[in-house]
Amino acid sequence: MSYILVTGGAGYIGTHTVVELLAAGYKVVVVDNLVNASYDAVARVEAIARAPVPFVRADIRDHAALDAVFKQYPIAAVIHFAALKAVGESTKTPLKYYSNNIDGAITLMTVMEENNVKNLVFSSSATVYGDATRFENMIPIPEHCPTGPTSPYGQTKLTVENLIRDVHAGDPAWKAAILRYFNPIGAHPSGLIGEDPLGTPNNLLPYLAQVAVGRREKLAVFGNDYASRDGTPIRDYIHVVDLAKGHLAALRYLEGQTGLCREWNLGSGRGSTVLEVYAAFCEVVGRALPYEIVSRRDGDVLDLTARPSRAKEELKWQTQLTVEDACRDLWKWTLENPFGYQTANYVWDHFGARDSYADRTHTVATTDGRFKVTFTNYGAAIVRATLDGVSLQTGFDLEAGYKLPANPFFGATIGRVANRLADGALVLNGATYSVPLAKGHTHALHGGPAGYDKQMFLGPITTKNEKTGDFRVKFVYNDPHMANGFPGDVAVNVIYTVRATARGGAIDIEYEAELTDQAEETAISMTNHTYWNISGGEDIAGTELVLVSDQQQEVDATLIPTGKFVTNSDVVTFKDVAAGRRAVILGTEEPKYDYCFTAGDARATTTDTRACAMVCVAEAYHPATGITFTTSTTEPSFQIYTGDGVNVPAGELTPGFKSRAGFCVECARFINAAKFEELKPSVVLKKGAKYGAKTEYRFEKAEKY
Amino acid sequence: MSYILVTGGAGYIGTHTVVELLAAGYKVVVVDNLVNASYDAVARVEAIARAPVPFVRADIRDHAALDAVFKQYPIAAVIHFAALKAVGESTKTPLKYYSNNIDGAITLMTVMEENNVKNLVFSSSATVYGDATRFENMIPIPEHCPTGPTSPYGQTKLTVENLIRDVHAGDPAWKAAILRYFNPIGAHPSGLIGEDPLGTPNNLLPYLAQVAVGRREKLAVFGNDYASRDGTPIRDYIHVVDLAKGHLAALRYLEGQTGLCREWNLGSGRGSTVLEVYAAFCEVVGRALPYEIVSRRDGDVLDLTARPSRAKEELKWQTQLTVEDACRDLWKWTLENPFGYQTANYVWDHFGARDSYADRTHTVATTDGRFKVTFTNYGAAIVRATLDGVSLQTGFDLEAGYKLPANPFFGATIGRVANRLADGALVLNGATYSVPLAKGHTHALHGGPAGYDKQMFLGPITTKNEKTGDFRVKFVYNDPHMANGFPGDVAVNVIYTVRATARGGAIDIEYEAELTDQAEETAISMTNHTYWNISGGEDIAGTELVLVSDQQQEVDATLIPTGKFVTNSDVVTFKDVAAGRRAVILGTEEPKYDYCFTAGDARATTTDTRACAMVCVAEAYHPATGITFTTSTTEPSFQIYTGDGVNVPAGELTPGFKSRAGFCVECARFINAAKFEELKPSVVLKKGAKYGAKTEYRFEKAEKY
Repeated sequence: MSYILVTGGAGYIGTHTVVELLAAGYKVVVVDNLVNASYDAVARVEAIARAPVPFVRADIRDHAALDAVFKQYPIAAVIHFAALKAVGESTKTPLKYYSNNIDGAITLMTVMEENNVKNLVFSSSATVYGDATRFENMIPIPEHCPTGPTSPYGQTKLTVENLIRDVHAGDPAWKAAILRYFNPIGAHPSGLIGEDPLGTPNNLLPYLAQVAVGRREKLAVFGNDYASRDGTPIRDYIHVVDLAKGHLAALRYLEGQTGLCREWNLGSGRGSTVLEVYAAFCEVVGRALPYEIVSRRDGDVLDLTARPSRAKEELKWQTQLTVEDACRDLWKWTLENPFGYQTANYVWDHFGARDSYADRTHTVATTDGRFKVTFTNYGAAIVRATLDGVSLQTGFDLEAGYKLPANPFFGATIGRVANRLADGALVLNGATYSVPLAKGHTHALHGGPAGYDKQMFLGPITTKNEKTGDFRVKFVYNDPHMANGFPGDVAVNVIYTVRATARGGAIDIEYEAELTDQAEETAISMTNHTYWNISGGEDIAGTELVLVSDQQQEVDATLIPTGKFVTNSDVVTFKDVAAGRRAVILGTEEPKYDYCFTAGDARATTTDTRACAMVCVAEAYHPATGITFTTSTTEPSFQIYTGDGVNVPAGELTPGFKSRAGFCVECARFINAAKFEELKPSVVLKKGAKYGAKTEYRFEKAEKY
Repeated sequence: MSYILVTGGAGYIGTHTVVELLAAGYKVVVVDNLVNASYDAVARVEAIARAPVPFVRADIRDHAALDAVFKQYPIAAVIHFAALKAVGESTKTPLKYYSNNIDGAITLMTVMEENNVKNLVFSSSATVYGDATRFENMIPIPEHCPTGPTSPYGQTKLTVENLIRDVHAGDPAWKAAILRYFNPIGAHPSGLIGEDPLGTPNNLLPYLAQVAVGRREKLAVFGNDYASRDGTPIRDYIHVVDLAKGHLAALRYLEGQTGLCREWNLGSGRGSTVLEVYAAFCEVVGRALPYEIVSRRDGDVLDLTARPSRAKEELKWQTQLTVEDACRDLWKWTLENPFGYQTANYVWDHFGARDSYADRTHTVATTDGRFKVTFTNYGAAIVRATLDGVSLQTGFDLEAGYKLPANPFFGATIGRVANRLADGALVLNGATYSVPLAKGHTHALHGGPAGYDKQMFLGPITTKNEKTGDFRVKFVYNDPHMANGFPGDVAVNVIYTVRATARGGAIDIEYEAELTDQAEETAISMTNHTYWNISGGEDIAGTELVLVSDQQQEVDATLIPTGKFVTNSDVVTFKDVAAGRRAVILGTEEPKYDYCFTAGDARATTTDTRACAMVCVAEAYHPATGITFTTSTTEPSFQIYTGDGVNVPAGELTPGFKSRAGFCVECARFINAAKFEELKPSVVLKKGAKYGAKTEYRFEKAEKY
């Protein structure tokens, strides 16, 4: 299946259009130089649409880079947004505008022509009309209104239009839609994407939004002596989601054509005054925002409203949303992302290939900077965690490490069914499903050979609670029907929250999943496989460990539970400690744990444990670092594994790891639960139901206080 | 002193403008990608203007390459020609036009801005007006006529105009002259530069010129039913030399401004019909050329004549030349260069640095391909000569060799005064001038330590007589006052002619020089120092040699002539051979010659021997190759040197050469002639007089016939 190339797809209108394209079933590749945009916007689009969005960071003026995209992806059509867009700035740095916007379009179309891709939707602007009030009968503005831009920005848009018209005239096989936008406003109703409020906004609503959150003092209204209802100029505002859908309409229109070049206004046809928009926004904010009437601005005119009839008739498109909708969505976006995609204490970096945006790391830190955690998309894994600079776990610094056969699931999300499944056999509704066995074993392990630990998760959506400083990092993954033998399409969310605690920090993990296809049921049990190590050294020796319970699943010689629970007399429980016993001290070789303990009782019957109480199931302490580690969970069981099987030989790029490099506390459903009638309800997810679980890993250092 | 950067300076209008700039005393650096031009045009400009024109082959879209030019040369202003210019082609390949013309200008202006160069003269076009007849009262066309180009070419010109206006608006320190050309025609009156007739000409006169020389059948006149004097459309034709001067006028106008951006028409204000121009060209050709009236051409209109009053008033510029002048100059250019700069059997290549256009080699071959000679600008030297693939001389393949201290003047032009000058002292008009002595000697040698052999000659002008196949390669050099101690600025020409003879080929050398400053007199005697070797081997052993004369200048122990002439009984003369004596056979060591023989008698009194009879002064033959070599000259003497002092050690890049690697026949004035009253007139060049000499080296192989 071929792709739609979206240039500037990380930008304001670009992201919204990509969301609509993905929702309509198109595959999309985004090219953006990120000069005026953030990759995080694309990551969020992936998560919103639950579809991968291949991304190439390239300047469209870079012929070779652009050509490589066309060689890598079969491109059916291009939607060309990439451009600089600030009218005022364009008068100060015209060369930059001509270079980005015109050179960019020339190079893009040259590469398109060379690759025989001749379908283009171009992001033009109503600014090409300039002052349409200089003509009789041209308000609302029709597409045949003579052009006459009054800024370098407008000139660049008109020049690209001319280029497209000339190219089409020279080769009528080209199909080109020139979309002249009026005033795009608003944001995605999810609140996850919107206009990134970098610098001083040039437009009315973004400015007003910054006034509302206190980043600007007051709105300046440029003149109230125009011949309008309230004296302020009239413009045609269009919700960015409507605008995005206009691109979809144009793309589909082109599909039915044999060759054309045509202009369409994308506007609502309804004019609003500045004060009307101001009032609508104040309404959603719930208070009157400060503003001041100042003198008219050079070049402003009374009324620039679109005549949108051509798009309605030909593209079968018209606006559905109102200025009020836009104000509501903008306010949600602004409240939830007051600083847009730019967030203090959040850093992303490349992890694997330098040019792969899927292989990114996401590092978040608590406000005090003491606690830092790094995630990556591959396996939605925890790849680094430190408290006061002390490493808390074991992992690689390169994605290559995670892909080594010897990697013992370092940091990874585990699924669809964590832990062991006897014979790899799963019986659901009378049908038997086979999960490939682990090498050298008679059971399947951790969801099979291509489990969640080996999947590229989409997103993440990284958001920060500006009040608490907590970070929420949400990865999503669509686990397809029959992957590793499991029935049913499952939509999975892995949501990490990194937050400061009184004496350190915590990572909360929330798992969420549901069936999204016609399958009646499937099995699921997720966990996290991080090897924790709070010793400050290369292994866990000296770690003091106390558990909530000494009851564990009995297993046979092949490590498969017998169905019985037995007491493990090697462990020390909280009760034991309360009774005066000292914690178990893990040595360099003993005791060896690889057992599944009970965390609670009644909870084993539900697939969504999130409503259950969080129970502290394990506490560890190491005197060398003074760090206390606790695991709490809503889950019925937790596997304690002292990492005795770890054996990663040192590689060219990666360090080696030996046994007991870390220990795991894998909170999940019981081992092989699907095979026991009394445990089965906890892992069998039915259509319409939710799977859910919560676990907290907490790290604290008392002596700091 | 700073430079004017001329982009597209190898093109039609560019070269003519560079000539005018150099004539006005400006220093110029040319950047051209040579996609639609030839470097030879720039070489000819150098020779016409007798001034160096640094040249960089670069595409102006190449930011780094362009920036390097600004870093290497202090640029005061830019005249920007570089662009594609065919209206018809632009409709077929608009992307190429937008890229070259618009990207090019954006990159150029970006680099200018980055280097704080803000003076620009832009080559625009009257095509930006489009059909000016669509308005009332706009013929003749004034600069305030609204624009509306009707082709991609015109769009690109208008877009660059807009860019310049926008850049000036953003930064009023910019000074920009936008010159809108009407119809440039004609060529330089020298016949050396003109419009290179590549492909099918798009314009009236170049097409007509090709009809005149038989390359096209007949002229098509598009419509004779317009409301003009004769029914054909009226255009404003402007001689390219006038146009070039318009750029100079604009450049000077900008010098007096503090910042502006303004448009000027460059036209004559006089319209000519197609048939009037046709008639004028037929007049100079001397016959009626075939033409045919065909139907009107799309987009043609009656009259597009310039209103040139703004340029006249402000730039103090107006056309001086007529359509008739242009026809005459075009015809001269066409007759002398029917294929423009592209010439069969002429190949140029880089010689020294790959990117240095000064260090080029120029290889010309006779029509039959038997005889090939290669020259280079350094020393205007002969660096290779072959007959039927057999090497005829000794030389390096790399410029590095010629710059070695051990290089014994291989192939080089020698001057200002060839051979030995006793005590390096020169008495002229009672004043004594000192030429630095040769190392380890009490005389100066070959014009001093930085003689012509070590100078970069300008040009060449390489022309071919299409009838005979003879090539003329003209190098020029301005030898400045007191260089090597010699008084007076001297303009030197070295003109090689390579031609086929009945049984091989010949190199004719003509020297020409004159004083160009206020000096009353100077001394001059030029020669060529090629080491000939027709043996086919590494040394001259076995060469049979016969001379015209056995009379030689007697020299003292320091090799300085005593004033007497003596008989050299070791040589064999033509008379001796006629009397039955066999030629001298040069051995591997003996006989050693380094003597100056008399070639004639009465000729020693003139500084210009070119009118004197050519006398064969030496003949050599080698049985191994069967090649006969003869030297003829108009000069009074010739030095025979058997190369016994040659000792070039092999280097990293260059081969070694040993004694007797070649022999020299250096035709010139007598040694130390300036010191003898009777010889002095032959070397003392007076103001207003000419120095001249001719020598022919001929190579033939009888048995081939």
